[in-house]
Amino acid sequence: MHAYRSHTCAELNKAHAGETVRLSGWVHRVRDHGGVLFIDLRDHYGMTQVLADSDSPAFKAIEKLKAETVVRVDGRVKARDASLVNSKIPTGEIEVYVTDLEVLGPAEELPLLVFGDQEYPEETRLTYRFLDLRREKLHRNMMLRSRVVKSMRDRMWGSGFTEFQTPIITASSPEGARDFLVPSRLHPGKFYALPQAPQQFKQLIMVAGFDRYFQIAPCFRDEDPRADRSPTDFYQLDLEMSFVEQEDVFAAIQPVIQGVFEEFGGGHKVDAVWPRISYADSALWYGTDKPDLRNPIKMARVSEHFAGSGFAIFAKLLEQEGTEIRAIPAPGGGSRKFCDRMNAFAQKEGLPGMGYIFWREAEDGSGLEAAGPVAKNIGPERTEAIRRQLGLGKGDAVFFLGGHPAQFEAVAGRARTEIGRELGLTEQNAFRFAWIVDFPMYEKDPETGKIDFSHNPFSMPQGGMEALDGDPLKVLGYQYDLACNGYEIVSGAIRNHRPEIMFRAFALAGYPKEEVENRFGGMVKAFKFGAPPHGGCAAGIDRIVMLLADEQNIREVIMFPMNQRAEDLMMGAPSEPTNQQMRELRLRVTPKE
Amino acid sequence: MHAYRSHTCAELNKAHAGETVRLSGWVHRVRDHGGVLFIDLRDHYGMTQVLADSDSPAFKAIEKLKAETVVRVDGRVKARDASLVNSKIPTGEIEVYVTDLEVLGPAEELPLLVFGDQEYPEETRLTYRFLDLRREKLHRNMMLRSRVVKSMRDRMWGSGFTEFQTPIITASSPEGARDFLVPSRLHPGKFYALPQAPQQFKQLIMVAGFDRYFQIAPCFRDEDPRADRSPTDFYQLDLEMSFVEQEDVFAAIQPVIQGVFEEFGGGHKVDAVWPRISYADSALWYGTDKPDLRNPIKMARVSEHFAGSGFAIFAKLLEQEGTEIRAIPAPGGGSRKFCDRMNAFAQKEGLPGMGYIFWREAEDGSGLEAAGPVAKNIGPERTEAIRRQLGLGKGDAVFFLGGHPAQFEAVAGRARTEIGRELGLTEQNAFRFAWIVDFPMYEKDPETGKIDFSHNPFSMPQGGMEALDGDPLKVLGYQYDLACNGYEIVSGAIRNHRPEIMFRAFALAGYPKEEVENRFGGMVKAFKFGAPPHGGCAAGIDRIVMLLADEQNIREVIMFPMNQRAEDLMMGAPSEPTNQQMRELRLRVTPKE
Repeated sequence: MHAYRSHTCAELNKAHAGETVRLSGWVHRVRDHGGVLFIDLRDHYGMTQVLADSDSPAFKAIEKLKAETVVRVDGRVKARDASLVNSKIPTGEIEVYVTDLEVLGPAEELPLLVFGDQEYPEETRLTYRFLDLRREKLHRNMMLRSRVVKSMRDRMWGSGFTEFQTPIITASSPEGARDFLVPSRLHPGKFYALPQAPQQFKQLIMVAGFDRYFQIAPCFRDEDPRADRSPTDFYQLDLEMSFVEQEDVFAAIQPVIQGVFEEFGGGHKVDAVWPRISYADSALWYGTDKPDLRNPIKMARVSEHFAGSGFAIFAKLLEQEGTEIRAIPAPGGGSRKFCDRMNAFAQKEGLPGMGYIFWREAEDGSGLEAAGPVAKNIGPERTEAIRRQLGLGKGDAVFFLGGHPAQFEAVAGRARTEIGRELGLTEQNAFRFAWIVDFPMYEKDPETGKIDFSHNPFSMPQGGMEALDGDPLKVLGYQYDLACNGYEIVSGAIRNHRPEIMFRAFALAGYPKEEVENRFGGMVKAFKFGAPPHGGCAAGIDRIVMLLADEQNIREVIMFPMNQRAEDLMMGAPSEPTNQQMRELRLRVTPKE
Repeated sequence: MHAYRSHTCAELNKAHAGETVRLSGWVHRVRDHGGVLFIDLRDHYGMTQVLADSDSPAFKAIEKLKAETVVRVDGRVKARDASLVNSKIPTGEIEVYVTDLEVLGPAEELPLLVFGDQEYPEETRLTYRFLDLRREKLHRNMMLRSRVVKSMRDRMWGSGFTEFQTPIITASSPEGARDFLVPSRLHPGKFYALPQAPQQFKQLIMVAGFDRYFQIAPCFRDEDPRADRSPTDFYQLDLEMSFVEQEDVFAAIQPVIQGVFEEFGGGHKVDAVWPRISYADSALWYGTDKPDLRNPIKMARVSEHFAGSGFAIFAKLLEQEGTEIRAIPAPGGGSRKFCDRMNAFAQKEGLPGMGYIFWREAEDGSGLEAAGPVAKNIGPERTEAIRRQLGLGKGDAVFFLGGHPAQFEAVAGRARTEIGRELGLTEQNAFRFAWIVDFPMYEKDPETGKIDFSHNPFSMPQGGMEALDGDPLKVLGYQYDLACNGYEIVSGAIRNHRPEIMFRAFALAGYPKEEVENRFGGMVKAFKFGAPPHGGCAAGIDRIVMLLADEQNIREVIMFPMNQRAEDLMMGAPSEPTNQQMRELRLRVTPKE
């Protein structure tokens, strides 16, 4: 017989009754039922009930077992009485009467119980991650993550993509975040960087003539941690294609993402038609470039109804260049109580408040009545025009925000989310996707007035070189994001593969040719020797798994995550280097200023 | 029609004749056949011949095309005359008459020609890697590598393993090589390390209760470059299993490795039975722990035939403790010319020479005659005993080396290789595997006399705690390597999962408990809370692909390799950090001493 097991802890059933078996696993729980000791023996695959009475030679050893001890047991499989069958687990038809037991791995008193649902502080959970991972939820999340990654990979190969590994110790990459540096020992004083993404490499792979690349790629950004972002390394499904336009990339990635959500989405509805929404429309309608389309609320411009109206605040505001009034419809929100609550929400967000109108049955039975101070100020005609524009009716409400859109759009978006949630409008058990397209290439710094890239500087401007001759702020890029349930889960672009257009695009943002060649030399040089038109995207794997596992924190879907201070509490990283290491690297730590 | 192509350059055949098509690709070559211009148009998938005569509106544009320009062509498919069919390529039945051509990506004068077989200095090849990769051999190697990795991965999943990603920015790992460090910005003065291998993490995954882990894992060692080792990052097929013994690991990995070699080995013979050879036997028989078993030569101990013999050098040598005489049989090497050549080889390797005997037909026709000075000195009886022990005969030779085995074993191994090669004994077109087992746990530094680990300190000593009470130099570990054709391609061990045995094992090598807890704290702590017996191995992917691609240099199987000085000539890494980066990290480069 094998030294450790003849079967796993999920394998035995009625058919094995009478067999002598060997199992190994963790002591999940020991129960004493009147002189009979029961162990729930657990391994990766499942749980088996093993037992011993005082006749068993293993009885005394079992009495002393601590939870989470690793044991090997030999025993005989017995069918349970029909009344004792546990149909919830695959081994519920049987139990194993122990004849021999060996402790393979003793366990000390546990700082974190594996059995049960007790909550522990994050510090404990991360320090004893190996115990936390034994618990059902994390175990399940990790297996889910692995299967999601496998499914993505299989789907990519199935669509004719080839996975290539790109360097991890490399040069600084141009993603715009902060690089992690790696000092070179062979070249003291010089540093490598870890890639923020394989952006340049995947473009070089296209220039090198490979047609359809993908990689489950580790990416590294030295950014301050937050709930949906790992502070050190994270993974992307990274892909790039040659001889393609934007819609080709969409056609390549949609089946992969949709397929994964269908396969692992726990039966949630998954959109098959993904709308294309321009960046400008998304900002207007949803107050964000990653809208949650489970929420049916669509905001609208209603400036015309307020211009020159009796609602003086807005009327006056609209006299300033670039201002707008926007409405957030709230179907079913037509009560003063609700409107006041949303007004309070706006105040908590730092706004003076949100004007509103709601419609109710007039008390005198004369029909529909618009309530709220705004309605009074603008009068019935304008009120009715607003109601018609938004398609609202009795029992509904609408909220208004005004000013320069850039200044209130984000709050409007959050108000929309809050209204959808509060009124139960936001669909449950669904994944809703939309491609956000037509991102502006440039933005103006409101303080300095300086023009800079608003997103990826390597995207091809729509209209090519000619477009760059006009107003930079009007130039759109072939750049796109995929939004799902309020998260950006994919981001990509058709690349600018023409050096002359690239130099011009950078010049508009104030980067001289020399700097471009200096910073992105490898790629720019490559483009001079026959570069194909190409484009691609990258999907955030950690975030997708978060959505599928219905987790709010990225640490719940990473095997060994860092804490919020970018520390690994289990392994003790980062740590002091040795003097020899610092000498070899010719580095010294400077004192704190 | 699609903006860039209706078909790839490998897709068109006779059945498409008459169709109007659109192709995009690189201008591989332009030929002028008496006023008709032919382009070999190349993409990732293949090559298509397109042509234009002076009637074509594209004629003038084609005349000006430089090699490696990226173009789109529209044209009509024409079946070739039977006499012009090129059966070597899938599109050889047709050609495309160009009606329109657009340059998508111009090309400057090339520093490295894609077409043809010209050789270029490595510096040129690495600086213009994107051009080198367009050449057939590298393109094929990269595709091979991707398919090998995919095949490994599929086989691992198929055997019930789950792939998990382990941290890349982490703590120093205990593999014994030099770490790459990553300075922490949030904790200035502290450093992360890149993992030399996911050793501790995979063991923690076992302790966390996952049963069968694998990962195509990037590994990082700051080692000086050599031909079969990347100077920065390299990839391993890393695996670990719980509740297993050594033979279980062999049974898990053999089908994966064997399968990959069968699938991609180009029809070479692939061993199905892999012998287990002890480390000691491997050193004796092959002079190395990574023997090339395609070479049938097996060395042997022949000390008894020289002890007290008339061959004074060896007889005297054998009076010293620990010395041996070993024989390298050379079937078919029985000529003075060959023996002298091998003797010269030994001298080149820094030895005084190798004694030899060879057997020939006696000139007087009296039968077999042993020739060479050794035979004369030891006399016919001992000579005959040696011949019989080694099973040699007429036309064969044997070479001798003597001394402390540790001092000549490596040279003996190289002489064996040389003899096998020179005599044509070494099998061609075959992959021969052997598990090298029973590695000693400890070795003694010949100068200091200090006992240290000879290989992996985390392996379980054979015999467990009891074995550690005897002579450390006699303790063997459950540690193993897989050798293939002279390379180590897999290395692994059954791990020491019992803290008390681990502390004792480290104490024998002079490491106090505190140091073990300090250096490997995460893992040692984990072992106190219920660790399963576990073991695994890691296969070197780059090296396996080298073998399969029949390449001598690892750079031929890596997409974007570093040069021998660990520089990326294409991307310009490593490079000077900015002052701001150094300030954020609170680092300063110290002057050269």
